[in-house]
Amino acid sequence: MEGNGIISFGSGQPDLPPPKEIFRNLENPRLFKYGLIQGDKRLREALAEEYPGAEAKNFVITNGASEALDLVMRALAQEPGSHNILLCQPYYYSYPLIAEFAGLSSIYTQLKEGLIDLDDFQKKIGKVKAVLINSPSNPTGRVEAMETLKAIEALTKKLGVWVISDEVYKDLIYGRENYLIKGRHVITINSFSKTYAMCGLRVGYLYSPDREFIQKVVDMKVHTSMNTNSMGQAMALSAMRAPRSYVKKQVAIWERRRDLIYGGLIKLGFDLWKPEGAFYVFPKIKNVERALGELYYKYKVIVYDGAWFGAPGRIRLSYALDEKKIEEGLRRIKKFLKGKEKWLI
Amino acid sequence: MEGNGIISFGSGQPDLPPPKEIFRNLENPRLFKYGLIQGDKRLREALAEEYPGAEAKNFVITNGASEALDLVMRALAQEPGSHNILLCQPYYYSYPLIAEFAGLSSIYTQLKEGLIDLDDFQKKIGKVKAVLINSPSNPTGRVEAMETLKAIEALTKKLGVWVISDEVYKDLIYGRENYLIKGRHVITINSFSKTYAMCGLRVGYLYSPDREFIQKVVDMKVHTSMNTNSMGQAMALSAMRAPRSYVKKQVAIWERRRDLIYGGLIKLGFDLWKPEGAFYVFPKIKNVERALGELYYKYKVIVYDGAWFGAPGRIRLSYALDEKKIEEGLRRIKKFLKGKEKWLI
Repeated sequence: MEGNGIISFGSGQPDLPPPKEIFRNLENPRLFKYGLIQGDKRLREALAEEYPGAEAKNFVITNGASEALDLVMRALAQEPGSHNILLCQPYYYSYPLIAEFAGLSSIYTQLKEGLIDLDDFQKKIGKVKAVLINSPSNPTGRVEAMETLKAIEALTKKLGVWVISDEVYKDLIYGRENYLIKGRHVITINSFSKTYAMCGLRVGYLYSPDREFIQKVVDMKVHTSMNTNSMGQAMALSAMRAPRSYVKKQVAIWERRRDLIYGGLIKLGFDLWKPEGAFYVFPKIKNVERALGELYYKYKVIVYDGAWFGAPGRIRLSYALDEKKIEEGLRRIKKFLKGKEKWLI
Repeated sequence: MEGNGIISFGSGQPDLPPPKEIFRNLENPRLFKYGLIQGDKRLREALAEEYPGAEAKNFVITNGASEALDLVMRALAQEPGSHNILLCQPYYYSYPLIAEFAGLSSIYTQLKEGLIDLDDFQKKIGKVKAVLINSPSNPTGRVEAMETLKAIEALTKKLGVWVISDEVYKDLIYGRENYLIKGRHVITINSFSKTYAMCGLRVGYLYSPDREFIQKVVDMKVHTSMNTNSMGQAMALSAMRAPRSYVKKQVAIWERRRDLIYGGLIKLGFDLWKPEGAFYVFPKIKNVERALGELYYKYKVIVYDGAWFGAPGRIRLSYALDEKKIEEGLRRIKKFLKGKEKWLI
């Protein structure tokens, strides 16, 4: 995608290399045998250290966060009660479809300035079996306030509503530490893809304090995909054992890029939120389809249509590319905007 | 499982090493990026050469044959018509559950001497949307006659019934070449796990001449798991490019083991079919649960209960272990049988 002078703000994946430690010990013959369906025990033990009170048995390693979400929704669909799931809009584009494939009906709470509106959330939460939240958010780049997360934690606990918390960007927050929503009713979804720049290997996981729920997921995965690919799991474990400085360095790079693209787009007159996590900006623009077409064919710039994320009238730009490319992309967008100032109002 | 002197005839996975060529070029940075959902194009091109008239676009690379089956059944469940699927009994234990998860109802045709009974098959095929066949079969080790496969091919075509043909053991047939069931209504499931001894990497695929069906599967996989793990795909491609002598040598080893265990069990008085493919024997025995318990606790021998495969009164033994272990296992089974001769009648 980056050949032929194209600047792609499209795909949401780190361009940085993974920790160099992950190439160790890949010829281990054990890796070619079926492994535990739940995932390599040492990897789950390493994860347990990151989650207070957790044990290895509370995790399932999956083929990326996608499979974790798919298995969780399919398992929840078998639980008694409502078949509704509450999604926040804008949303990551797979959410409504994974829910639909699992036989769940999506209802939506509209985000306010990219953040959960607790009033609307409260109105709708009584009707659902589960809610899916995503902070830091793809596509908004926003991070929910701790008070909001704690309010959701308490409210859903009181009502007996499951929370699926997709925290795949938890290590990419610029302001503060991630707040882990807790409780027996909470299922945390996570991934090694973003933190360790290993998207293609497809290693993610789910965490739940509810051992029975974990067992239901494992009982399904035995048949639907068996163990998660062994090589990816071995690499994920090596990545976790790599010096923490790897993650810190990455976050510093992401923050510089965030400042660059946010400042650049503000200067061009865009209306957008300042990203607090993940690596996306989500500015408003009119005539999105024309904009996408012209940016691509005339300026060789790829951006995504906000409508794909349930937000018509916006575009998503991933800033997972180096600063020179971001600057060049901004220059091209500036040219594109000439005479189209009204598209930004 | 093989520690502490245990002889395991349980798990169905090759004990032989994968082709040594698969360790090449694993540090390629491209492998860490998201790949095509449908699968690496070069891998699909290599597969297309194995299927007459096929092109790369007719394949989807999946997280093992399991995910291929899961996606295919979920996609078929969305097709119009009956929600029934015809399974052959005995069956691979995941089939009924994958069907159930997808919302399909299983009906069964009883195998006769481990082979499809065309009379019963014909009676039931009119009621179903799809049929799943598996030759060479796990757990029976039998291979369907070409005439049977051709009759099924024609009958299902005439009736407009989908055929899912699970051919994961296609390279492990002792007598003849595999016969590939053909037609726009046929979906072939396959895997690199058995042929190249890479079970843990979880790389399988599905093949269909029906490009629209392939697209439906890809449209689902975008959300449910994204690309299949890149490292496994790279290794699968290297394995396909390894000299063909690798596969031939393996088959010769399997055939020697087959003769050893088949001859040994016949000598002990068991009633069983001579395996023509895969690496399982499926003898009859009475009091299966007691037999499993005593074999395990007293003789440290693991075998699987035929009931798991829909065949009470049989046990499944995988002969995916070296000849010395097979011989030792047979000696222990002989000791176990002392005074239990009636269990074999």
